[in-house]
Amino acid sequence: MSTPRQGPGRPREDRIDHSVLAATRKLLARKGYGALTVDAVAAEAGVSKAAIYRRFGSKAEMAFRAAVHAAELPSPVDTGSLRGDLRALARVIKASMGNPLAVQSGPALIAELAKDPALAERFRESALGVEVDYVRGILEHAVARGELAEPPDPAHVHLLMAGPMFYSLFGFQQAVGDDLCERIAQTVADGLLAAR
Amino acid sequence: MSTPRQGPGRPREDRIDHSVLAATRKLLARKGYGALTVDAVAAEAGVSKAAIYRRFGSKAEMAFRAAVHAAELPSPVDTGSLRGDLRALARVIKASMGNPLAVQSGPALIAELAKDPALAERFRESALGVEVDYVRGILEHAVARGELAEPPDPAHVHLLMAGPMFYSLFGFQQAVGDDLCERIAQTVADGLLAAR
Repeated sequence: MSTPRQGPGRPREDRIDHSVLAATRKLLARKGYGALTVDAVAAEAGVSKAAIYRRFGSKAEMAFRAAVHAAELPSPVDTGSLRGDLRALARVIKASMGNPLAVQSGPALIAELAKDPALAERFRESALGVEVDYVRGILEHAVARGELAEPPDPAHVHLLMAGPMFYSLFGFQQAVGDDLCERIAQTVADGLLAAR
Repeated sequence: MSTPRQGPGRPREDRIDHSVLAATRKLLARKGYGALTVDAVAAEAGVSKAAIYRRFGSKAEMAFRAAVHAAELPSPVDTGSLRGDLRALARVIKASMGNPLAVQSGPALIAELAKDPALAERFRESALGVEVDYVRGILEHAVARGELAEPPDPAHVHLLMAGPMFYSLFGFQQAVGDDLCERIAQTVADGLLAAR
């Protein structure tokens, strides 16, 4: 039976997760990914290494969760239109991917994913899976409203929204401006709506 | 005065460039980026290290040119429509960014760019500048044909076209399929055309 997570008394796992992620963020900001160790995070958070590995699987996943998913995804947006929903999504991705810790840790995490296919697989299923589900929800709303005849592949739309920001940050080493964010949302929305 | 590059007798620099890039590709494929040295490339190509640094500036730029720009950009496409031109561009980017050497060397090059702001600046101006100019040409054709009222920022359109492939390859560790390539071209073309 799963433990309900609502209510004032959150289960103990959440507090441990929270401590581990906070400690990881603190050490990442201070030393960078290369010098980060699970030992140091365990000491800083006051938990065992075993607890960390049980929850996060690896140093890379712990660091990714801490750096990129510093902010949880907000409740699915429903602004009343596909345009509005994609504009809101673009801002969520910009805030999540463009935060200083994610920008700083990104290249090392990209290298880890390339070296470890099992890690890349888990990463696609967990972290990225959440974002793709979020996009799926937006597309299903647009179908329900009659804006789209049928939903396009949510994984493709996720890449169209997030890919230009990822390339700007890690290929061009340039921050994502509000004008790029707006251009992405507008072009992708107009492009999907034109397919009706 | 610049030396014309047409005709049967190409200037000597081109043969040296060609030897260096061929040697770099051979050593990259065999040993990977980490173990690549300018010394080894110079020996393999039969040129001096000074000649390599004069032409390419750094190991990273030499490797990037060898890995990603293995194929030079073809002459600017002009298929007669923005849709056709962006479809052709998507295939060029897919072939260039998705070739095995680029995929293998990409994460190490991403790390180099993050460590060295001067390298990132040169990279934006040279390699990426060529691609952005290519996109600019496509957009100007579309304006001349009356398909677009005014050209959008070519740097943004370049990110919209190439970003989803870059994210798929280096964030998701997944090859770029023909269906993604087609989805990108179609959505970006429809999105830009809708702005008329």
